[in-house]
Amino acid sequence: MQKVRIAIDAMGGDYAPLEIVKGGIEAAKTLDCKIILVGKKEQIEKIALENHSCCTDNIEILDAPDDIAMDEKNPARAVRKSPGSSIYIANKLVADGKADAVIAAGHTGAATAASLLILKRISGFERPCICTIIPTTKSRMYLIDGGSNIETSAEQMLQSALIGKLLAGLVLNKENPRIGLLNVGSEEGKGTDKYQLAYSLLQQESSLNFIGNVEGKTIIDDTCDVAVCDGFTGNIHLKALEGGLKAMSEGLKQAINNGGALAKLGGLILKNSGVFNKLRDHFHPDSYGGALLGGLNGISLISHGSSSAEAIKNACKQAKLLVEKNILEDIKNSL
Amino acid sequence: MQKVRIAIDAMGGDYAPLEIVKGGIEAAKTLDCKIILVGKKEQIEKIALENHSCCTDNIEILDAPDDIAMDEKNPARAVRKSPGSSIYIANKLVADGKADAVIAAGHTGAATAASLLILKRISGFERPCICTIIPTTKSRMYLIDGGSNIETSAEQMLQSALIGKLLAGLVLNKENPRIGLLNVGSEEGKGTDKYQLAYSLLQQESSLNFIGNVEGKTIIDDTCDVAVCDGFTGNIHLKALEGGLKAMSEGLKQAINNGGALAKLGGLILKNSGVFNKLRDHFHPDSYGGALLGGLNGISLISHGSSSAEAIKNACKQAKLLVEKNILEDIKNSL
Repeated sequence: MQKVRIAIDAMGGDYAPLEIVKGGIEAAKTLDCKIILVGKKEQIEKIALENHSCCTDNIEILDAPDDIAMDEKNPARAVRKSPGSSIYIANKLVADGKADAVIAAGHTGAATAASLLILKRISGFERPCICTIIPTTKSRMYLIDGGSNIETSAEQMLQSALIGKLLAGLVLNKENPRIGLLNVGSEEGKGTDKYQLAYSLLQQESSLNFIGNVEGKTIIDDTCDVAVCDGFTGNIHLKALEGGLKAMSEGLKQAINNGGALAKLGGLILKNSGVFNKLRDHFHPDSYGGALLGGLNGISLISHGSSSAEAIKNACKQAKLLVEKNILEDIKNSL
Repeated sequence: MQKVRIAIDAMGGDYAPLEIVKGGIEAAKTLDCKIILVGKKEQIEKIALENHSCCTDNIEILDAPDDIAMDEKNPARAVRKSPGSSIYIANKLVADGKADAVIAAGHTGAATAASLLILKRISGFERPCICTIIPTTKSRMYLIDGGSNIETSAEQMLQSALIGKLLAGLVLNKENPRIGLLNVGSEEGKGTDKYQLAYSLLQQESSLNFIGNVEGKTIIDDTCDVAVCDGFTGNIHLKALEGGLKAMSEGLKQAINNGGALAKLGGLILKNSGVFNKLRDHFHPDSYGGALLGGLNGISLISHGSSSAEAIKNACKQAKLLVEKNILEDIKNSL
């Protein structure tokens, strides 16, 4: 069998190209897949040479000379105007069958626009949705849409649920995944008209294990495997959750540092016991690596803007799994 | 000067009437205000006698014989049908000038409906908004609307900002409070048409220190003092934040308990150093106690369903401050 080929936009993300390239090289070394690093060739080669005895057979570097003309208000136009940019070329590799998946960190709007423009939608699927993995106290789950489509319709929420079911099964190994509608209360009838309509569509879809409305304060306890909502709501949820996780870990650090000798001793012991690393591994987004853009004719993963090498490597791992299990075929069949 | 009189619905909340009554008694003893406990008189007297040498001059118990006929889909109708219920009578005391503020824990919908029905709106104010205090890593801030009005208009978000400015100054001692619009990105032009309109209304209001769009992952770092949004979005944010805070503290507990002898020792030392109590004091909603229902002709505070005695006492403290500083007059003048 041919190795899975993953194109990575080496220029996107807060720590690009350094962390992105390092993550790609790490993936090429450990995951038995081929990595195509797309971006400013000289910069990428320099990092590759400095960090590793470049280049194994699993790594290819492809030059993308242009910067993307960023235009916040219209990322689609920005992408169209920049066919020589790394994000454009990386997506084009997938569209042309020269790569099996694309990974981009950094500007979500531009990455979504590029994949939408170049990979195109699956017929019947109006807008891509960001399928984000979030932590629960015990496990992980999917939140869809994480912010691709700020005015997701009720019908689109149903499509998100169908994709989420497949992903939760494949990536998180959940059997008969429990699907919830993220809402402002758990009772039926909660939320806007659109949410009430989404509720009834989800309820009518017999292929789904729909458990009703769910809330942010309860899904954290692993009460469902997929929560669907519109992209505005999903993005608000994700960022508030990120804020909450950060606040508590920062608060703990501060309280230890300002708590006197005893607090510092306790903190030191906990650190040495591995407790803090364990927490980080479970809750940090780098440990999942990326979110599939659902509903497109190609595997495209978006990583967090602050992605480290670890995040990129983990995104590659996820991408490889999705390609090998042929998730695209399953998604097309489910719609 | 007459003592501030606070009516408390003793029957609302997960731990009612026990915790509510205990909190009210604690407030009466320590805050130099008069507490009127409204509910099943026999039950309240029993708790009061068991817990304290009832009753000081600062406590009055008022019988409310009826249960509220709860109707999830229409809490307003449920309240109207139950004039003998504790939530109705407690609000009526304020409307009749027999109390200066009302506090209710438990069902937010019913509490909001009762205050809206009985205290009525300030002229020009279409819908009440829940003015929630949330933690940041260093301080506290207001999030408005916390979930009273799931389809808040852009104009109503402006009104929320005007109330938030007053509250952040009075309750949190913030000078020239920084006002942000909670959105899915920090750049101008983000969000739905409604959010773009709210942005321009907030920008045009010269009395406000408007700092633009803000996000859940950044406001946690104390970057603004008031974030406004529609009630659906605010409720999603609050519950995701609550989930995030809980996940990290539960995760820490689990990692300590399952981390072996060294982890347990570190955890024990940290506990004895007071670090965990300090974290709880800063992040737990009981330490703020309640959220003002803004835009009504009376001071009405809603407390979390899981309110403890501490939460009720702290809500009384907040209510007393709002009454003494005559916030209602300021709100009316600001609109």
